[in-house]
Amino acid sequence: MRMTLAELARRLDAELVGNGAREVDGVCPLDQAGPSQLSFLHNPRYAAEAVASRAGALLVREVGELGEHNLLVTPHPYLAFARALAIFHPVEQPPAGVHPSAVVAWDADIAPSATIGPLVAIGSHSSVGAGSVVGAGTVIGAQVTVGADCLIHPRVVIEDGCSVGDRCILHAGTVIGSDGYGFATVEGLHHKVPQVGAVVVEDDVELGANVCVDRGTLGDTRIGRGTKVDNLVQVAHNVQVGEHCLLVAQVGISGSTTLGHHTVMAGQSGAAGHLSIGAGVQVSAKAAVFKDLPDGAFVSGVPARPHREWMEAAARVARLGGLVDRVAALERRLDEHGRRLAPEPPERS
Amino acid sequence: MRMTLAELARRLDAELVGNGAREVDGVCPLDQAGPSQLSFLHNPRYAAEAVASRAGALLVREVGELGEHNLLVTPHPYLAFARALAIFHPVEQPPAGVHPSAVVAWDADIAPSATIGPLVAIGSHSSVGAGSVVGAGTVIGAQVTVGADCLIHPRVVIEDGCSVGDRCILHAGTVIGSDGYGFATVEGLHHKVPQVGAVVVEDDVELGANVCVDRGTLGDTRIGRGTKVDNLVQVAHNVQVGEHCLLVAQVGISGSTTLGHHTVMAGQSGAAGHLSIGAGVQVSAKAAVFKDLPDGAFVSGVPARPHREWMEAAARVARLGGLVDRVAALERRLDEHGRRLAPEPPERS
Amino acid sequence: MRMTLAELARRLDAELVGNGAREVDGVCPLDQAGPSQLSFLHNPRYAAEAVASRAGALLVREVGELGEHNLLVTPHPYLAFARALAIFHPVEQPPAGVHPSAVVAWDADIAPSATIGPLVAIGSHSSVGAGSVVGAGTVIGAQVTVGADCLIHPRVVIEDGCSVGDRCILHAGTVIGSDGYGFATVEGLHHKVPQVGAVVVEDDVELGANVCVDRGTLGDTRIGRGTKVDNLVQVAHNVQVGEHCLLVAQVGISGSTTLGHHTVMAGQSGAAGHLSIGAGVQVSAKAAVFKDLPDGAFVSGVPARPHREWMEAAARVARLGGLVDRVAALERRLDEHGRRLAPEPPERS
Repeated sequence: MRMTLAELARRLDAELVGNGAREVDGVCPLDQAGPSQLSFLHNPRYAAEAVASRAGALLVREVGELGEHNLLVTPHPYLAFARALAIFHPVEQPPAGVHPSAVVAWDADIAPSATIGPLVAIGSHSSVGAGSVVGAGTVIGAQVTVGADCLIHPRVVIEDGCSVGDRCILHAGTVIGSDGYGFATVEGLHHKVPQVGAVVVEDDVELGANVCVDRGTLGDTRIGRGTKVDNLVQVAHNVQVGEHCLLVAQVGISGSTTLGHHTVMAGQSGAAGHLSIGAGVQVSAKAAVFKDLPDGAFVSGVPARPHREWMEAAARVARLGGLVDRVAALERRLDEHGRRLAPEPPERS
Repeated sequence: MRMTLAELARRLDAELVGNGAREVDGVCPLDQAGPSQLSFLHNPRYAAEAVASRAGALLVREVGELGEHNLLVTPHPYLAFARALAIFHPVEQPPAGVHPSAVVAWDADIAPSATIGPLVAIGSHSSVGAGSVVGAGTVIGAQVTVGADCLIHPRVVIEDGCSVGDRCILHAGTVIGSDGYGFATVEGLHHKVPQVGAVVVEDDVELGANVCVDRGTLGDTRIGRGTKVDNLVQVAHNVQVGEHCLLVAQVGISGSTTLGHHTVMAGQSGAAGHLSIGAGVQVSAKAAVFKDLPDGAFVSGVPARPHREWMEAAARVARLGGLVDRVAALERRLDEHGRRLAPEPPERS
Repeated sequence: MRMTLAELARRLDAELVGNGAREVDGVCPLDQAGPSQLSFLHNPRYAAEAVASRAGALLVREVGELGEHNLLVTPHPYLAFARALAIFHPVEQPPAGVHPSAVVAWDADIAPSATIGPLVAIGSHSSVGAGSVVGAGTVIGAQVTVGADCLIHPRVVIEDGCSVGDRCILHAGTVIGSDGYGFATVEGLHHKVPQVGAVVVEDDVELGANVCVDRGTLGDTRIGRGTKVDNLVQVAHNVQVGEHCLLVAQVGISGSTTLGHHTVMAGQSGAAGHLSIGAGVQVSAKAAVFKDLPDGAFVSGVPARPHREWMEAAARVARLGGLVDRVAALERRLDEHGRRLAPEPPERS
């Protein structure tokens, strides 16, 4: 696909500065883009690369030093970049219908515009909404609701009774509605606690590959609207993840913990169970949250504490060698003073 | 389903204190239960909520302050809660038989009372015991044994030669019998060491979603009877997990390590290879075990050390700022002493 | 299978010292091997066990104390052990052909000698090379290239446009080509950045079970030739993993980070995004790399720093209690000196 900069500016709601008749046919990083490609500058750190770029046009926030280039000026160049990618790489909607190799319960309700791929299994009383695509090998249990315009990649599992909102994206290997990890231990035997709740995935959620979201014990585990979850994340039973959160790869959240909206847990971090973690919280990579956190907290470390405290403690530990030396020097000096003080009293008396 | 408290008490082996004719139809948390629901108090922390609860009846350990309520008194209220859940949410056994879309080797031995779901593949010389259910899309290799009354969720993989005991529950996406990670590195090339052992999952084991249990190099990797494993756990080749252990989400155990019975590894903790970890050991969340541990050890941190030591070290690090200040104060005082001592000798001589 | 030691020595390129007519029929650990089995000594730590072993023959580096045994002497006993396992446990190549239950696009190019298992789905314009085996339930998208002599276990997913080299092994549950985790956040909404790159898995790579390798945003994510990846590893978009690297279980590598050749990341370690990590680097278990690392670095801890520094810091923290005591002792001594100095000036005046 080729498109003039004038047309592209119109579609991206950007202001064109330069030659509107120039055509581009794709998007590339600053250092790889050629004259027929669009590139973008959203981080001022790369300003010099932008100046030097051979790109046919640049998405930028302001004209600045880049007057020599064709520019598409927009307050959000990175969002415009995402939109430009979608323009140059349109996703082909597969043909609607149920593949003959799929096994769909007779009483399942599949929208006529939905696509059910090969070797999919869908259980009784489940529904798949208009425009949704279910990839090959996915298993949807009984009484599951999948909304409209979802993209479910191959080999996802959605267990009985769970629901997925509209415009959700579920990546391959993800499991929604596995049993929560609950046992009543009596005399050394772990008796299973039935997990009779379900999982509710709200609208506009994206779950990465091989993610696990356990069903609730009594009520539902919930992933809030607009939340984006990376690969290999674990969400335990009864967890309530707020709206527009970001859970980066390999995060683990223990049972019954609540996250407010717009909270971010960085890669490989974790949270203990039964915690209340506020809105807009940032948990650093590898950190482990063991206590409730107020809105806007920024924490690091194991156990997690305010990021600044953690940084200071880390710096002090790094300087511990110096402190040890200072204490040893003090001991030597005091020994010396002692030697100078010690003999005197008898002389004076 | 509705049931009188008298009948429920009988089925839960509990002592009824109150109105045996009262009917309940479900189980709810203390704060949500209404007059037609059962709730439970197993943690004294929630005693006040129990007093205030509107529940039709409470499962409790002793009558205490709760004399106004209908009570079912039992030494193990949480276990009784689990049983009550099973009573009010009976699991429907799916009809026995092999789904026509399943691909089952002609010489596989499927019990007549077993259920083989849609799009399942079962290899040669494998067997599935009486009453076991194999979910949609699961793949069972050749010469695999699955015992009786197992529940295998969709899209599990059990590779060739592995065995699963009776009454096991395997959640979706779990892989049993992937190759162990073993290589002979010569001149920078990693040559694969064939992994010719298998995996033995003993009776009453539960494995969470997307768990990995590698096959042994020569002998078998083993998960002991009654052990419960949470989601996304990694068990490497030749590991021997004892009976009735708990491995919480995202735990990793490296090759050839042995765990005694009733050992607990909390979330995101790990153990290095070739270790002997005793019985009844507790490994804290995020800890990393690099040394053998005796029975009953309770360890935390990276590297893991006795929990108390770890707590003390953490407290000392938190107070490091104060120690630095104290050392600086000492230096100032000693400088002053020095000034007072230094000029004197010449005056005296 | 039984084989004389003479024949085995020939096949393993080893020098026979002992009775070449002796027959062996398998490989066992030193303490379990009997007279008809081969064992091996590759770690001098086990020399005493080797002397005491009842094995029919031993693979060793040198004759040393083991003159009483039949020996196969080779510079690389562990590699010879791997080869011997392959000899005694030959892998049966399944019959070539496409299982009738597989759903293969009419324009896919499947080599006549390849094996496509039951319930596999293969999309349009994809190819599978000569001698490759695709396990049951695997899903291969459109325009995917799988090379020759690959072993793809059950229930793998390879998404559209990705490529896998020759002689690769992919374990069950692994996902290649899930979308990278990229969003343009504007006014609290996370807008998806289309991920239009792919994944390139080079020759001789092994990926463990339930691994995730995300496709690139613009270019490709790459796993270098000969690299071996353990279970549950996360490789984010645009990551470039060098040749012959080892990524142990549950490692996570964030977006756009580059690893040089022969770099090792131990279990549960992680690396932040946009880093340049050199060749031959060793990252300890549980460590988190937040900065670029030069070739040959050996780092530990969170944040990762040179291993020796980390060890020293850990040792100092362990001795902090002693340091606190020393500071308290200094304070007491200085108080005493002060008492002895303080009263004097008035007496002198």
